[in-house]
Amino acid sequence: MPTPVVLGLDFGGTKIAVAVGDLSGRRLGTTTIDSLAEAGAEAAMRRGLTAAQELLTEVAPDGELAAVGAATLGIPYDDHVELAPTFPGWGELPFGRMVREAFPDIPVLLGTDVKAAAAAEVRWGALAGCDPGIYLNLGTGLAVAIVAGGTVISGAHRASGEIAYNLRTAADVWIEPAQRTILEDVVSGQALEATGSNRLGQRVSAADVFTRSATQPDAAVLTEQFNRELAMHVVNLAIALDPARIVVGGGLVGSWDRIGPELRRALDAAVPFPPELELARFPSDAPLVGALALGVEAAGAVLGAEAFA
Amino acid sequence: MPTPVVLGLDFGGTKIAVAVGDLSGRRLGTTTIDSLAEAGAEAAMRRGLTAAQELLTEVAPDGELAAVGAATLGIPYDDHVELAPTFPGWGELPFGRMVREAFPDIPVLLGTDVKAAAAAEVRWGALAGCDPGIYLNLGTGLAVAIVAGGTVISGAHRASGEIAYNLRTAADVWIEPAQRTILEDVVSGQALEATGSNRLGQRVSAADVFTRSATQPDAAVLTEQFNRELAMHVVNLAIALDPARIVVGGGLVGSWDRIGPELRRALDAAVPFPPELELARFPSDAPLVGALALGVEAAGAVLGAEAFA
Repeated sequence: MPTPVVLGLDFGGTKIAVAVGDLSGRRLGTTTIDSLAEAGAEAAMRRGLTAAQELLTEVAPDGELAAVGAATLGIPYDDHVELAPTFPGWGELPFGRMVREAFPDIPVLLGTDVKAAAAAEVRWGALAGCDPGIYLNLGTGLAVAIVAGGTVISGAHRASGEIAYNLRTAADVWIEPAQRTILEDVVSGQALEATGSNRLGQRVSAADVFTRSATQPDAAVLTEQFNRELAMHVVNLAIALDPARIVVGGGLVGSWDRIGPELRRALDAAVPFPPELELARFPSDAPLVGALALGVEAAGAVLGAEAFA
Repeated sequence: MPTPVVLGLDFGGTKIAVAVGDLSGRRLGTTTIDSLAEAGAEAAMRRGLTAAQELLTEVAPDGELAAVGAATLGIPYDDHVELAPTFPGWGELPFGRMVREAFPDIPVLLGTDVKAAAAAEVRWGALAGCDPGIYLNLGTGLAVAIVAGGTVISGAHRASGEIAYNLRTAADVWIEPAQRTILEDVVSGQALEATGSNRLGQRVSAADVFTRSATQPDAAVLTEQFNRELAMHVVNLAIALDPARIVVGGGLVGSWDRIGPELRRALDAAVPFPPELELARFPSDAPLVGALALGVEAAGAVLGAEAFA
C-alpha cells in the first residue's frame, strides 16, 4: 500500500517554496524557486505547481498524494486573490482553481501565507501557548496575524492582519488607499529596496540598506524611518491586544540585529505591559510549514481527523 | 424562602451606577450617583457601596444577596487598580477588598468596565454573533474591547483594549507615556472638556463642544481633531482585526450625530472590508449591565452554573 503524503506550497512575492511531508507534518523534501514576478503572475504560479509535481516524483515516487495545502500572499479564493498589491497580476489569478487543476481529485486547503505561518508557530513553534499572541511578518510585504484562544483570528472577511493598509498619520484619515502612502509603502522589504535603490543611486536589497545603515547616513535615514513607523504600529497593536509575545518572521529577519533592538525599546517605552519579542521558530519558512499543516488538515478531513490530532 | 438577587456596580470617572437584578440578569432597580472625583477616590468608592446597600434594601427587602459584580475604569485587583489615570487616586484604591468588606461572605467578581460592557453587548446586545467584533467606549476616557470567538479578549495581563496609551505619531516612538501626549489626552470626554473650556474661555462639557462645533469655528477645530485622531486609531484596529461590526458606547454617544458619520466615512475610505458601525444596545449603561452579568456569573459559580446558562 503506497505511503500517503501531503504537499505544501507557499507562493510569496520573492520566492515560491514547496514541501512534501508525511501525515504528521514531518518534511520529506523541500524545494524553493524564485517567483520572478516580472515574468507575470500566471507564469510564476505554473512554475510553482510544476516544481511541486517534480518534488513529489523525486521525494515520494511511491507515495500517494493525500492532500494539498497552498498558502499565498493575499487572501486566496478559487477565482482570484484579494489584497496582493505587491505582486502585479496576482490578484487576477484563479488561484484555487489552478491548484485544484494541477492536482485533480485531491483535497485542497487554501490559506493566507502569514496566517498559515502563524498557525505553524502556534502548533509547533514560538507562539505555542501565547494567548493572545501576534505574528509579525516582515517580508516583501507587511502583515500580522493575531492569535487568541489558541487559533489565528481569521476576520469577518478573512482579512484580519492586513496592516499594510494602515493609516500612517492623522492627515491620512478620510483618504482612499490609492491616494495616500499606505504603511506597506514605507515598512516592507519591497519599499526599502525601492527607496534604498533610489536614494543610494544603485540597486540594493532591503538587507543591503540595513547593512549600510551602520556606516552610511543616507541608508541610516531610511532604516530609522522604517523602524520608527514599524514600531508605531506594532506598539499600538500591542497596546490594543496585550499579547504575551510577538513573534517575527519573514525575509527581513536577516536584518534582525538592526530591527529587533529598536522594536524592543519601543515596546518597553510605550506598552503598559510590554510583551516578549522573539524570532519565529521557522523565521524564513513558517508559511511553508503552515501550508504543510493546511495539507495535513485537508488530509485529515478525508482520512479521519482523529488520526492527526 | 428569600428570592436570590445579584448586585452590579459600575464605577466610572463621572458617575457610579448600581443595579439589583434577579439571577437571569433582569434588572429590578437601578440608581446612579455622581462620582465627584474631586472629593477623592475613597470617598467615591464608599458612596457607591452605600448607594448599593441602600438600593438593595429598597428594591429587594426580602431578597437574599447571592453575588456581586463590580466593574471599574482601569484594571481592578484586590489591593489596587491599574491604568486608571483619569481618576486621581483611583489607582491606589484597594478596590476588590473594599467591595468584599462591604458585602462579607458574598461571592464577588471584578471586571474592567469596558470589557464588562463588551461582554454585555456580546451576550444580550449589538455584538451578539459578531466574530470578531470591537466595542469602542467613548466616555470620560478611551478604551476598546476586542471580541473573538464569542468572548472578550482579556489580554496576557488583563490589559487588552487600553488604547488610551496609543502612540499618536511616529515622532512619539521610543518616548515614555509621561513624556508624550497619549491618545486619551486628545480623544476622550475629559480631554475635550479640558481643551474646550480652555479654548472657548468658559467651562463647557464635551457634549457642549460638539454642539457648538456646528456654529463656532473654535469648537469645530477641536471636534475635527477629535474625530480625525479617533478615526485613525479605530481604522487601524479595524484593518488589523477585520471585525464584522464596531459597536460604540459611553457618555459621548450623546454626540453621535457629530462623531458617527465621520467615523463611518473614515472606515469606508480606508478599511479593505469596512465593518458595520452601530451604537451599543446599552450605550449609556453597558458597563452596568456587564457588572450585573459578572454578578450572575459569580452567583452561578456558587449556585450551579447550569441554572444560568
